[in-house]
Amino acid sequence: MCVFCSIIKGDIPTNLVYEDDVVMAILDISQATKGHTLIIPKKHYVNIYDVEEETLKHMIVVSKKIAILLTDKLNADGCNIVSNNNEAAGQAIGHIHFHVIPRYVDDDYYIRGQVHDYDLKEILAQIKK
Amino acid sequence: MCVFCSIIKGDIPTNLVYEDDVVMAILDISQATKGHTLIIPKKHYVNIYDVEEETLKHMIVVSKKIAILLTDKLNADGCNIVSNNNEAAGQAIGHIHFHVIPRYVDDDYYIRGQVHDYDLKEILAQIKK
Repeated sequence: MCVFCSIIKGDIPTNLVYEDDVVMAILDISQATKGHTLIIPKKHYVNIYDVEEETLKHMIVVSKKIAILLTDKLNADGCNIVSNNNEAAGQAIGHIHFHVIPRYVDDDYYIRGQVHDYDLKEILAQIKK
Repeated sequence: MCVFCSIIKGDIPTNLVYEDDVVMAILDISQATKGHTLIIPKKHYVNIYDVEEETLKHMIVVSKKIAILLTDKLNADGCNIVSNNNEAAGQAIGHIHFHVIPRYVDDDYYIRGQVHDYDLKEILAQIKK
């Protein structure tokens, strides 16, 4: 069984930050920064490609609330909201979740790759084809 | 004036992927991966802390649509949705935007820091205080 479904079912203990009818927010056991929290819908969807729209909207609204809560309570300097979809994007568990990652000046979280000199008009043509 | 407000006003040319009454989706001029797109509300909000809820919901729904479009048209293997809030989190422009980053097996985008061995119960207590 999916590990997040097991947590939601109550079969695996967790560190609950917030809960309502649609989602749970729990501390990630792998803390990228202090307070790193996951927003997880109670219903199983794989990722952003298949999640139902109302659930997705609720996930981002709760992400905002949790971002404000964590930033306030942990005296953070900002936050990232991150959604990894499919293995190539770093998705480790096949049940959609948003990472809310409080950020602190001089923390060691790193979020950006190199900048590539692609032909933007060519990419746009490919997208619109 | 804010550079995104100038793009929205039409004063700065852009590579438009999608547009509706509430948001624009444009190719990021700094392509982290091929097809890297920004979802930007037409109304100016600084970041997730101050964005109005209906706009936020619409941003994530459009992010999903663009994620599906880019993954399909560019033959991507997945995607990240990323929101950077405040300078400490890597926010470069003070007008809220979501990054939709198509991912390809073996690309050079990197999204995760180290794992820290924090005391989760202690963090939870601090959040709930």
